[in-house]
Amino acid sequence: MREEFRRNLAAAEDTLAGLAETAAAAIEQATVALLEADLAAAERSQESNRALRQRLTELESTAYDLLALQAPVASDLRVLVTVVRLGANIERMGSLAAHIAETAERRHPAVVIPDLLVPVFRQMGEVAQQMAVDAAAALRSRDTADAARLEAEDDTVDRLRLELFRQIAGDWPHGAEAAADAALLGRYYERFADHAVAIADAVLYLVTGVAVEVAAE
Amino acid sequence: MREEFRRNLAAAEDTLAGLAETAAAAIEQATVALLEADLAAAERSQESNRALRQRLTELESTAYDLLALQAPVASDLRVLVTVVRLGANIERMGSLAAHIAETAERRHPAVVIPDLLVPVFRQMGEVAQQMAVDAAAALRSRDTADAARLEAEDDTVDRLRLELFRQIAGDWPHGAEAAADAALLGRYYERFADHAVAIADAVLYLVTGVAVEVAAE
Repeated sequence: MREEFRRNLAAAEDTLAGLAETAAAAIEQATVALLEADLAAAERSQESNRALRQRLTELESTAYDLLALQAPVASDLRVLVTVVRLGANIERMGSLAAHIAETAERRHPAVVIPDLLVPVFRQMGEVAQQMAVDAAAALRSRDTADAARLEAEDDTVDRLRLELFRQIAGDWPHGAEAAADAALLGRYYERFADHAVAIADAVLYLVTGVAVEVAAE
Repeated sequence: MREEFRRNLAAAEDTLAGLAETAAAAIEQATVALLEADLAAAERSQESNRALRQRLTELESTAYDLLALQAPVASDLRVLVTVVRLGANIERMGSLAAHIAETAERRHPAVVIPDLLVPVFRQMGEVAQQMAVDAAAALRSRDTADAARLEAEDDTVDRLRLELFRQIAGDWPHGAEAAADAALLGRYYERFADHAVAIADAVLYLVTGVAVEVAAE
């Protein structure tokens, strides 16, 4: 019974890693939509998000079936609870990518991002996408080195967001609405990155048994 | 054994409800800090958030002890997993209140919110606080009427946020930085409200066994 549970649990973790990769695709597509006012890319991002939500619902249902049908011991339950929690993180990542895609759709055919900020958002998009890929790798490998890489990437996102605020607070000729859009978009990327870090922290916890202190933010 | 587990589980749910009330206090204090540039209120909000995080860590630890020491059946486990998940929602509510308080601190002694927007933010603060109180009531009562009230309140928050965007997109003489601040603050209140709704939805699910369809956002 325990072997079977473990096999099913490993399959659930693998599904979770695949969903983190779907979140990576969703934010990549959303960033293209944003920077190029590309409606087709926006639609692909939304579709990735819908697929992600559908498969998360199935994963959660599987997790509850595992609870009901097999009698997992406490350590396995801990992993199972973590899988359910991380599912919520990945769901948010998909929603945040969708918010970015929606912003591109709402302003189309205008480009939301002023030229000056394109490099900042391009880099934010690249790092965020890489973080989702790395979170998936950490889930698959349970390797602490994969998890540790996320911290440095998160620092990059924070730095880019500060650069964004400096631009808005400086000589900003693009008006209030564009400033509000840029601030919210920066927030979406930042939160996407935070969720990837949360996945890495949970993997570290499962491997080492030591909770990562979550900084009050 | 099962009776003991249920007693402990009920205690955990009660703790969770208390923490939702702490989140209500945190957003009330943060709103005072925001509207009146009141540093002492900001500090009280931060302190509520710190207390909330500390008690959530303890609650999570208790939940895992329950898994380890008692042999819960599947339906009880489902409640336990829900308790852990809702803990994450309440943690976010505390963080969002802290973000609002930090914004007030960062801009002090200036008031962040232009006069014109004070009524919008005052009402957002009141509704958000009430939603946390109502989420706590839903957790304590497991009453679907308590849970249902949250949906209407959430509509109010969405309406207020639209009003906020209309102001920013209209004749806005306050500059780009103030627009960015206002947009982010509106987002914090909206997310706070979303988490309260998620708590209510989970309560409905525990009571009725029917998952509330989460709208893709």
